[in-house]
Amino acid sequence: MTTAPTPPHLLLGSCDYPEHVPRDRWATYARMQKELGLSFVRIAEFAWSRIEPQCGRYDWAWLDQAIEAYHGCGLRVVLCTLTATPPAWLIRAHPEILASDEQGRVREFGSRRHYDFASPVYREHSRRLTLAMALRYGRHPAVVGWQTDNEFGCHGTTRSYGGASAAAFPEWLRHRYGVVERLNEAWGNVFWSMEYTDFSQVRPPMLTVTELNPSHVLDYARFASQQVADFQKEQLEILREMSPGRFITHNFMIFESGFDHYQVAQGLDFATWDNYPLGMLEFFAPSGSGEEVKTRYARTGHPDLIAFNHDLYRGLVAQPGLGREGRGTPNGPWVMEQQCGQVNWAPYNPLPAGGAVQLWTAQAWAHGADVVSYFRWRAATMAQEVMHSGLLRHDETPDRGYAEVETLDQTQFPVGPVPARVALLHDYESLWLYDQQKHSASLSYWTQTVAYYSALRSLGIDVDIVHADAGLSAYAVVVAPAITLVPPERAARWAKAVEGGVALVCGPRTAFRTPGGQTWETGQPGPLSDTLGVKLLQYDSLRPTLSQRVSGPGGDVQAHGWAESYRLQGAEALYSYSGGPLDGEAAVTRRGQVTTIGAHSPELIGAVLADVLQRAGVETTPLPEGVRLSRRAGRTLVQNWTLDAVQWNGLSLGPVSFMVQEE
Amino acid sequence: MTTAPTPPHLLLGSCDYPEHVPRDRWATYARMQKELGLSFVRIAEFAWSRIEPQCGRYDWAWLDQAIEAYHGCGLRVVLCTLTATPPAWLIRAHPEILASDEQGRVREFGSRRHYDFASPVYREHSRRLTLAMALRYGRHPAVVGWQTDNEFGCHGTTRSYGGASAAAFPEWLRHRYGVVERLNEAWGNVFWSMEYTDFSQVRPPMLTVTELNPSHVLDYARFASQQVADFQKEQLEILREMSPGRFITHNFMIFESGFDHYQVAQGLDFATWDNYPLGMLEFFAPSGSGEEVKTRYARTGHPDLIAFNHDLYRGLVAQPGLGREGRGTPNGPWVMEQQCGQVNWAPYNPLPAGGAVQLWTAQAWAHGADVVSYFRWRAATMAQEVMHSGLLRHDETPDRGYAEVETLDQTQFPVGPVPARVALLHDYESLWLYDQQKHSASLSYWTQTVAYYSALRSLGIDVDIVHADAGLSAYAVVVAPAITLVPPERAARWAKAVEGGVALVCGPRTAFRTPGGQTWETGQPGPLSDTLGVKLLQYDSLRPTLSQRVSGPGGDVQAHGWAESYRLQGAEALYSYSGGPLDGEAAVTRRGQVTTIGAHSPELIGAVLADVLQRAGVETTPLPEGVRLSRRAGRTLVQNWTLDAVQWNGLSLGPVSFMVQEE
Amino acid sequence: MTTAPTPPHLLLGSCDYPEHVPRDRWATYARMQKELGLSFVRIAEFAWSRIEPQCGRYDWAWLDQAIEAYHGCGLRVVLCTLTATPPAWLIRAHPEILASDEQGRVREFGSRRHYDFASPVYREHSRRLTLAMALRYGRHPAVVGWQTDNEFGCHGTTRSYGGASAAAFPEWLRHRYGVVERLNEAWGNVFWSMEYTDFSQVRPPMLTVTELNPSHVLDYARFASQQVADFQKEQLEILREMSPGRFITHNFMIFESGFDHYQVAQGLDFATWDNYPLGMLEFFAPSGSGEEVKTRYARTGHPDLIAFNHDLYRGLVAQPGLGREGRGTPNGPWVMEQQCGQVNWAPYNPLPAGGAVQLWTAQAWAHGADVVSYFRWRAATMAQEVMHSGLLRHDETPDRGYAEVETLDQTQFPVGPVPARVALLHDYESLWLYDQQKHSASLSYWTQTVAYYSALRSLGIDVDIVHADAGLSAYAVVVAPAITLVPPERAARWAKAVEGGVALVCGPRTAFRTPGGQTWETGQPGPLSDTLGVKLLQYDSLRPTLSQRVSGPGGDVQAHGWAESYRLQGAEALYSYSGGPLDGEAAVTRRGQVTTIGAHSPELIGAVLADVLQRAGVETTPLPEGVRLSRRAGRTLVQNWTLDAVQWNGLSLGPVSFMVQEE
Ligand SMILES: [Zn+2]
Ligand SMILES: [Zn+2]
Ligand SMILES: [Zn+2]
Repeated sequence: MTTAPTPPHLLLGSCDYPEHVPRDRWATYARMQKELGLSFVRIAEFAWSRIEPQCGRYDWAWLDQAIEAYHGCGLRVVLCTLTATPPAWLIRAHPEILASDEQGRVREFGSRRHYDFASPVYREHSRRLTLAMALRYGRHPAVVGWQTDNEFGCHGTTRSYGGASAAAFPEWLRHRYGVVERLNEAWGNVFWSMEYTDFSQVRPPMLTVTELNPSHVLDYARFASQQVADFQKEQLEILREMSPGRFITHNFMIFESGFDHYQVAQGLDFATWDNYPLGMLEFFAPSGSGEEVKTRYARTGHPDLIAFNHDLYRGLVAQPGLGREGRGTPNGPWVMEQQCGQVNWAPYNPLPAGGAVQLWTAQAWAHGADVVSYFRWRAATMAQEVMHSGLLRHDETPDRGYAEVETLDQTQFPVGPVPARVALLHDYESLWLYDQQKHSASLSYWTQTVAYYSALRSLGIDVDIVHADAGLSAYAVVVAPAITLVPPERAARWAKAVEGGVALVCGPRTAFRTPGGQTWETGQPGPLSDTLGVKLLQYDSLRPTLSQRVSGPGGDVQAHGWAESYRLQGAEALYSYSGGPLDGEAAVTRRGQVTTIGAHSPELIGAVLADVLQRAGVETTPLPEGVRLSRRAGRTLVQNWTLDAVQWNGLSLGPVSFMVQEE
Repeated sequence: MTTAPTPPHLLLGSCDYPEHVPRDRWATYARMQKELGLSFVRIAEFAWSRIEPQCGRYDWAWLDQAIEAYHGCGLRVVLCTLTATPPAWLIRAHPEILASDEQGRVREFGSRRHYDFASPVYREHSRRLTLAMALRYGRHPAVVGWQTDNEFGCHGTTRSYGGASAAAFPEWLRHRYGVVERLNEAWGNVFWSMEYTDFSQVRPPMLTVTELNPSHVLDYARFASQQVADFQKEQLEILREMSPGRFITHNFMIFESGFDHYQVAQGLDFATWDNYPLGMLEFFAPSGSGEEVKTRYARTGHPDLIAFNHDLYRGLVAQPGLGREGRGTPNGPWVMEQQCGQVNWAPYNPLPAGGAVQLWTAQAWAHGADVVSYFRWRAATMAQEVMHSGLLRHDETPDRGYAEVETLDQTQFPVGPVPARVALLHDYESLWLYDQQKHSASLSYWTQTVAYYSALRSLGIDVDIVHADAGLSAYAVVVAPAITLVPPERAARWAKAVEGGVALVCGPRTAFRTPGGQTWETGQPGPLSDTLGVKLLQYDSLRPTLSQRVSGPGGDVQAHGWAESYRLQGAEALYSYSGGPLDGEAAVTRRGQVTTIGAHSPELIGAVLADVLQRAGVETTPLPEGVRLSRRAGRTLVQNWTLDAVQWNGLSLGPVSFMVQEE
Repeated sequence: MTTAPTPPHLLLGSCDYPEHVPRDRWATYARMQKELGLSFVRIAEFAWSRIEPQCGRYDWAWLDQAIEAYHGCGLRVVLCTLTATPPAWLIRAHPEILASDEQGRVREFGSRRHYDFASPVYREHSRRLTLAMALRYGRHPAVVGWQTDNEFGCHGTTRSYGGASAAAFPEWLRHRYGVVERLNEAWGNVFWSMEYTDFSQVRPPMLTVTELNPSHVLDYARFASQQVADFQKEQLEILREMSPGRFITHNFMIFESGFDHYQVAQGLDFATWDNYPLGMLEFFAPSGSGEEVKTRYARTGHPDLIAFNHDLYRGLVAQPGLGREGRGTPNGPWVMEQQCGQVNWAPYNPLPAGGAVQLWTAQAWAHGADVVSYFRWRAATMAQEVMHSGLLRHDETPDRGYAEVETLDQTQFPVGPVPARVALLHDYESLWLYDQQKHSASLSYWTQTVAYYSALRSLGIDVDIVHADAGLSAYAVVVAPAITLVPPERAARWAKAVEGGVALVCGPRTAFRTPGGQTWETGQPGPLSDTLGVKLLQYDSLRPTLSQRVSGPGGDVQAHGWAESYRLQGAEALYSYSGGPLDGEAAVTRRGQVTTIGAHSPELIGAVLADVLQRAGVETTPLPEGVRLSRRAGRTLVQNWTLDAVQWNGLSLGPVSFMVQEE
């Protein structure tokens, strides 16, 4: 393990796959990486079939040699636990490891992530192999940390709808509810005679004639999330014991929503994530923005979508653990995989604009990353990802991203805190419930949440994204865009924060549902009614060709997708609906420091948030399209995400570029 | 059973679910319902798991008490046979009850309608449970009638493609055809060597490499329809014996087309249906009308789509049976479930416009309904339909629909006959065959049929929708928009009606196919050729970007989707095609009182029908968009379905409103 | 067998199904066909269940009689091997014959092509039945030739994903690779730990969590193609022995791409194909051209799409075999099925324009067809294709196509060679690999290939489409639009042709991949780098809303879908990119006679090809939209595919018409 003093600025790395190239390349690549200024290398991510070519027969020699090659050049190594790709000999011997999809079809071998988290036999092999790896390399001086598995949940792999998961679900329910009557009550199974008389009768929610019971879906999501957490915990315990002083992390995936990331992040030293801005745009462009936004940001990605993930994953692990080199600080998150050229998995995979790799790296730093690791060192010449770029091309010549990394000055990126005075609340259970019953097809939990986030970013605000039950007293303003599931304890916590001086903003559908997935017998927003000073009156689901006018201090705006109105019970109306079924009813309300926004309208959200921030004494800087500010460690990163030069605030920003300003 | 004299006007009711709320609410709700002016309550629709929590262990106490609560307030009760939702204990004991979908996947427990109509074991439980209910409540004084099951066929549940249905189909065929050679001939199985040598070789039509044999599909539709009819008949026989004097009905679903409703309606006292105008619009907006129509009627539904269902279901049962309170008259149909706020099952679920609940209720009356029963009393706080509204909100406060019901004067709606002089012919076998081979993807049986219906309604015409084999002599004009299957007997019946003075109008593809699903060896329209005085010459399937000009007395119009031409054999051409492949050929023909329309064009259909009606002495009133007239019991309901005030014919109609005029 | 001298011009035929009509029609139909000027009739295509109603019980009498009916009128008969539709008694006795789809579902009986080519039991029945047919009719004087099966691969039936194919694949791999390590290396299985330790572990590529390994897919395509070839070879061997002097062919399907047609065509005397121009347009309209092109050619089909198939299938069999009447010449290909009215299998099935049937026939001749056989004689009155037209209507009256055939002068179409000096290279392995990893969703192998073909046709060029490994020395210009898989031997062959004076043009992605489906370790275009004088620098996948400017001699054009750039290593840049990520990089390069086009742009392709052709001394004739020239046997067919009259080059062409000019 390296004992070099931790540098005070952003460090770089890359993902490398020595098993994909001839052995004679290893030392060469390590030297080239060092020369490029990289400090870290992540390896062995999918190497199970090479480490254990047959059951119980380990082949360590090649990995020993590869690690030595990196070590010899002073690179610090991150190892993986190998479990994302169980090999053929294991799958064919134990086909019950394979997961099933929502239609009950077995998900076949021949790709990756083809396992059921609940499989006891897979769990056993996961522990066995993790132990073997940890024993072999846990104390190797080059090894500074571990990545568990790879991208949990990616490709919809959290939930299996057959086999091991189907078998384990009833027992999980029995543990949760004790007696089946409590399950029936929690799920409201009386509704369509869905009452069970024994836990063993319950199956995964799938293939029903019409809608699934949302409470059934919600509990299945909880169950599956627990399996991921348990699966990783078993690896964590082994690694903690056998590889002291090394950090342990996981590389989470863009907007992945299959499991509760807060639950799975427990025990990690910090979170990392895999940042692919261009593929992300194709899949997660803000709903309703359509082709125009996808085109404008086709070669850079959308700044707020990327920043959201940075802020989200930075907030997963609140307590500092082991730092980026194992023992020591700082403990900031990483980007474990950073796109550095075109990807291969979207319908269209354009080249990044010149400057985008530097811009992404700078943004990652400004949102808290202490390490950015590029995916991948050399483009793969084989199999699924031959069309995916790397820092080197197939022929080992430096690709466009390489040149950008080469000319990037890392010392302008000192590590340090992100000075956020605004928190945005997030909760996976709310996400599951919201998306199970959208009621308005053009909205989703992410759409609504990102709309609030983007409004804040457009005002130049730094944001912490934290769990809905996190401590809030450090913030001036707390925004709850779509926390639809609010148990009484959560409502009490928020009320206390408000009493303590925090300004709270709630979006539509806040506290719509009970923890069981039902609605409050006393109406919405249930236990939050007093704090908000309102009761839900109407909710209107607007098809894309409909809108609803909202009138208020700054004139009229149009709501799209969703509009809900309130009966005032202590709050006053800031905005009201005019025309349509909601004519004259309250659209935005305020009781003291608590503001409730019932209409979905980016324009309205921006106006209300600007007002709230001003009242809370948080300075705002309205920004033009494509310009963004991010602050860290006493510096401000001014970013131009457009393909044109921009004059802003006396600054000249080239196309796709940034400036670092000292405060 | 109540012996109160039948009131002479529309009565109201609601659907309530006492098992969904605490017992202490029952008496309160009953009292509130009575105060609101409701007369009926439908209960126990999905209550199997509460009536029989375990196999053979009945719990009657709660339902006894609930019925007493309603009875105590003078409400009349409609009970259900419970079979729409077999509970978990039954399904897990007899998984063979579950149906299979078109891909052969078992349709799982956890929702509703998860049974195969052909399952012998389910049939047995259906009879057993119906008998138990009938014995318990069949003579209860509060109980005035029964609803069998719920919404047969909804969610594509008529046809099961495995298990019990797959097992029963060969025997059904043997019964129909006697020897397999007759089956082969009827289906034209020689076509692709599809000939069977034994009935046992025949399976449900599914998962073939390419197109299915339409005759195979047609017979499977007939088979499945028969299962529904048989299933219900078993319940009917028990209820007739054990619950004398009570009406028996079924609540049919919007445009449901899985089974032959005329067949299934046999033995019922009258039909009811479930009227959800806004969800209906999203799913059944007139083809080609696109977003513009969906937007215009987003908050009211489309008047003609709703009216079509009213007229369709009113016509299902021709002979009067027991009336709405059991013994006695009138015997008109009901709306068993009437939307009274937003629904939850469309992609978008907007709020109804102010006034829509009253307008829907008035329209229901004018199209023959004697009772309108709102769905549901209180919004569900649990499970699949928590986002669906009721007359009361989740928190028991009155919702928007409640207020409209409260202020509605029912006495302006006397019961009595709908004075239709025009009949529109309908036939489920034609529908099955048409839709199996559309040939032009933008048309369907419903699209074509509703186009003719809507043209009539735009002319202010009251319409009876009747079976293609119904007696026609009472009508001045009979329209057969899409009766593609015309056996010789049917042709003879129509010819006789024409001889008797009825004016007949046929749309394209009329009599295209034989009862077996083949085409006539002698060409189309087969046995109807003489009556129409034409032979089919060409049929042209027009992609949406193509049209075909039609020229006639009133100038030129454009046909879309479909254009067929005729060789004249006794008829004359009223309109001809000009340009394109059909240039100069007959598009609309007339022989005596028989008119044939070959081109699909709402404009053309309207013009030709107006001419036919005028000649037949049926007065027409051309109406502007969104204005409709409906007559009943000597009164005329003038309706404004637009969101704007309308001046029409000297009347001022507010947005979404109606007037009742005495004739 | 007829011994009449082969006429020197195009002959006509039709597809007839005597088993579909009463016996008394056979002689009548034969006489009518003769009177219409038809020479051939193809029969018994789907007649297995009539020839062998039960296992081993043959019924020859009816077919004997039908053949005599045609023979008696001087018609020459083409017989089929019956295997496209195994009957029910065989399938129910041996359900393992049924294929499985990509989701693992058994493809059910009840349609056609429901068999797995790898099924040993089906192979046995195929041989048995072919032998029985050959013994019975192999030397019949009326029989001039055989069609094997029908439309191999149609409806995605080449590849089965279960049963017999799944069982045979491992053995095929063992045969190909010998030891499993070589398989792992060839597929790059180390990539995601997909390495096998035994061939028996390998399954068809299906249902994986995310992307399939393209090498796995490529080998499965090769395996499945081999099954088709083997299946047919067994029939060929029997027919060759038992039916001497008769030709053997297969009727290939439009753009079918499931198997390697060059492999399957081996041993055939010539290829035939089934030409349905209107259905073809709906399914294969040039990508990106959208509704506008589909509308313009809705009633004629697109001339280049049709011509492409003519040229493709003409080139399948290079060596002359037995001619169109068995023994003798000429040996040109046929159109075995020619649309002569509307089809029934597209979403929309418009009527052909007046003149289209003649135009299609003339075009077929000009592109090398010696016989055009219309599908079908009489429209079917039963089963799947009742909406499909024939020369006769359902009622036996002559339909529109009949009239066009009646007035067509066949003597203006002498047989003889197509004088192509330009070859377009084609390769199914490249197609499989390209389409498995499109990287840009709007492009495909066919799209890119047809773009080059269409550019040539717009310049009035006659084209041979030949296999990528065919002899090239006879051509002035060779175009390789999308040969993405270029082994070293192929590269050497092309280099040698270039040395010999051939001008070579390569499109984007040429030689991108190794024969195993990987990329070259040394970069693209691998072994072709020297010949092209370039190395691949960047490739850009452009979403439909993006374009990339290309600048060159003729000004600027916009690339869509794809843009790749090159590092010059001996070549010079003809066009360069301007703006965007590729700014200043080479877009089109030339080294000597070799031109490489990196940008996808029909306009650019046309300009570059025009230049190359001019330099190579091949005369070009730029043609307006919808006008085409095709040359054969010393004559030129001038075609107008538009619905309007056209003045061109001093000629007056009526709408949808042609002229034959002597050179
Ligand atoms: Zn990754
Ligand atoms: Zn209902
Ligand atoms: Zn065919």
